[in-house]
Amino acid sequence: MAATASTTPHSLLLQKSPQNHAFLKLKPNSTTLPLPPAKRFSISCSATLPIQDRPSLQTQSQDRVFNFAAGPATLPENVLLKAQSDLYIWRDSGMSVMEMSHRGKHFRSIIEKAEADLRALLNIPEDYAVLFLQGGATTQFAAIPLNLCQPDDTVDYLVTGSWGDKAFKEAQKYCKPKVIWSGKSENYIRVPSFDGVEQSPNAKYLHICANETIYGVEFKDYPVPRNPNGVLVADMSSNFCSKPVDVTKFGLIYAGAQKNVGPSGVCIVIVKKELIGNAQPITPVMLDYKIHADNNSLYNTPPAFGIYMCGLVFDDLLKQGGLHEVEKKNIKKASLLYNAIDESKGFYRCPVEKSVRSLMNVPFTLEKSELEADFLKEAAKEKLLELKGHRSVGGMRASIYNAMPLAGIEKLVAFMKDFQARHA
Amino acid sequence: MAATASTTPHSLLLQKSPQNHAFLKLKPNSTTLPLPPAKRFSISCSATLPIQDRPSLQTQSQDRVFNFAAGPATLPENVLLKAQSDLYIWRDSGMSVMEMSHRGKHFRSIIEKAEADLRALLNIPEDYAVLFLQGGATTQFAAIPLNLCQPDDTVDYLVTGSWGDKAFKEAQKYCKPKVIWSGKSENYIRVPSFDGVEQSPNAKYLHICANETIYGVEFKDYPVPRNPNGVLVADMSSNFCSKPVDVTKFGLIYAGAQKNVGPSGVCIVIVKKELIGNAQPITPVMLDYKIHADNNSLYNTPPAFGIYMCGLVFDDLLKQGGLHEVEKKNIKKASLLYNAIDESKGFYRCPVEKSVRSLMNVPFTLEKSELEADFLKEAAKEKLLELKGHRSVGGMRASIYNAMPLAGIEKLVAFMKDFQARHA
Repeated sequence: MAATASTTPHSLLLQKSPQNHAFLKLKPNSTTLPLPPAKRFSISCSATLPIQDRPSLQTQSQDRVFNFAAGPATLPENVLLKAQSDLYIWRDSGMSVMEMSHRGKHFRSIIEKAEADLRALLNIPEDYAVLFLQGGATTQFAAIPLNLCQPDDTVDYLVTGSWGDKAFKEAQKYCKPKVIWSGKSENYIRVPSFDGVEQSPNAKYLHICANETIYGVEFKDYPVPRNPNGVLVADMSSNFCSKPVDVTKFGLIYAGAQKNVGPSGVCIVIVKKELIGNAQPITPVMLDYKIHADNNSLYNTPPAFGIYMCGLVFDDLLKQGGLHEVEKKNIKKASLLYNAIDESKGFYRCPVEKSVRSLMNVPFTLEKSELEADFLKEAAKEKLLELKGHRSVGGMRASIYNAMPLAGIEKLVAFMKDFQARHA
Repeated sequence: MAATASTTPHSLLLQKSPQNHAFLKLKPNSTTLPLPPAKRFSISCSATLPIQDRPSLQTQSQDRVFNFAAGPATLPENVLLKAQSDLYIWRDSGMSVMEMSHRGKHFRSIIEKAEADLRALLNIPEDYAVLFLQGGATTQFAAIPLNLCQPDDTVDYLVTGSWGDKAFKEAQKYCKPKVIWSGKSENYIRVPSFDGVEQSPNAKYLHICANETIYGVEFKDYPVPRNPNGVLVADMSSNFCSKPVDVTKFGLIYAGAQKNVGPSGVCIVIVKKELIGNAQPITPVMLDYKIHADNNSLYNTPPAFGIYMCGLVFDDLLKQGGLHEVEKKNIKKASLLYNAIDESKGFYRCPVEKSVRSLMNVPFTLEKSELEADFLKEAAKEKLLELKGHRSVGGMRASIYNAMPLAGIEKLVAFMKDFQARHA
């Protein structure tokens, strides 16, 4: 990593690294050493710690907690180290990525590699545009109807949680959206049989939220639009790049980056090019896909550092072997946790139908709900954080995205069993 | 700084820090030391390198270039070092700022301090909301008319450059904007006398771009709206926090962060609260100021890391003594460069009227335009980068925002004089 200081590094080492007593022995020697020049110097170990050679995510630094937040969420430790090493000066650019002109050769190489790696990960065909935008998925709730249909067009929303419902409500400003199914009355615990849901014959698109972050309901396969000229649109914010997806089944996929692929502030849109270019006249220029597609996401200044971070994550996912390998790890992690819940004899409960349980967000309640506060307090002592369920569901929720190490799940499961033993 | 590695730090130091030969002497000793455990460890010197104790920006690391880009632009070196030191683990949170829940106590403390420090810097009254948004100033080109007026309302645009012109064009979608003055025919070299410009009697607002990044035209004082119920709206993207501003003269101030106060991906809106709450029905929820004001910029996931970076910059500006001190430095830097241009006997020329020359963006041409390519090439060899003028103006442009060290201007001026001596 890059270490940059106006003090001497060996004195730093003496002051810090409590796990590393060997360094204390340096003191007598180091104090006899001539002091280095006072001016700053820079150490970069992007060479000594190439991202692909870093340890896997099965373990992580003892200094870090296990962060089960729903998003922003834990990032791959090796990606954070790489970003830290290059934050002050990126390669031979003489500047930070945050300081680069978005039209310069350095940033162009960053965004072009990010797009190429994402295309490789998801096998995105050439007739789909990949856009790196701002404003989160919530901005897309408006951009999608503004770009894909006219005010009188009918569109369908299959609502399996709060995010799908929010997307539907926003669309009411720009077209004639219809909720063709909602799980709200059951508090969102399932995905319906697609055959049993009647789609509007002329719907311009069918919208789903592929993974409902709050309720933990995930589509395992996808409905086909009834209208042969309609397309499937999916909000994949919370399971983006967590498994392989056949992009050709969709007209548009969108995802906020801050769960699986980067920091907040970047929203990725993958849209079939033939759908671009028909935005309603009232569409703000920044919500018009054509503007961004024609300018390769560089119409105005993009969220450059966020895109750079997404690129580091894409690179890491490819080096892990791609999304088939990533999915295997996610299935292993999720199974461990769901099994612990199901085998607790009802002490822990997950309300979601087993067939559509999310690999990313695992909500669960305690049979003795009066114990929930203690559960959270004791978990926090074990560095297991952000486990409180969303206020609209209550109970607990463990978000276990790509970057959550297996060790985090193992520690959580061990804690849950111990907690149960003490409170059963 | 935080140094974290799966290798031993003394070996790191031996491999790197070329400017620091003292460490080579460590080798014999260090090789006799017992190796530390293989597991990662973390070193943090946010304590040993408190931001306020870092050297001023009069000099900077020899590893860095002088980056005159118009935005994204150079950031304060000490802010970059602070961000690097805390990137992997922020304080006692056990996680990176990029991983924090935006609703958790850690990030709340970050965004609340950022807002408080910005309010202190600009002396922002309580009856103004401060919003941290996404989408850049370009998104505000639509949000402003959508929030401040109805479709039939007239609004005035005083156009002193390309950005004001773009803002006007976007407003045509949402109201009846009128260009009451444009410098386009003169290629944007001045600001008109306000008395000579006729404002629309009922204009809901008068829009200006306080500093035109491309043409280098900066308002030194501000027009007063003719309509007693109208307000002044200013795009301050490229001179935000470069000098004190009387916020009470404005109904709304907006600024993309990526020139003076942070990385790209954050847009700050300072708006009088009484103007909030009347958005047009077609306003996307993410462009509705009321949504963001009611939720303290946390309606959805904000660009958290960018806001954190802005907060570090605000903290640094306060520690420099506030905007009066910052303005003094900016005047000194800009004078040095403009004087070099004006004293070159026409070898260099700045087309902008002296009374409104920007302290932030300094465009200039060479009398012998055939020398421009050589100028840029030779400047780059001296680590003076991003000096090419905008394609719509040609020539050169030096953007010298708050974070450009005086040393950068001095080196540029010395180079310009040497180049002239060799080519006059």
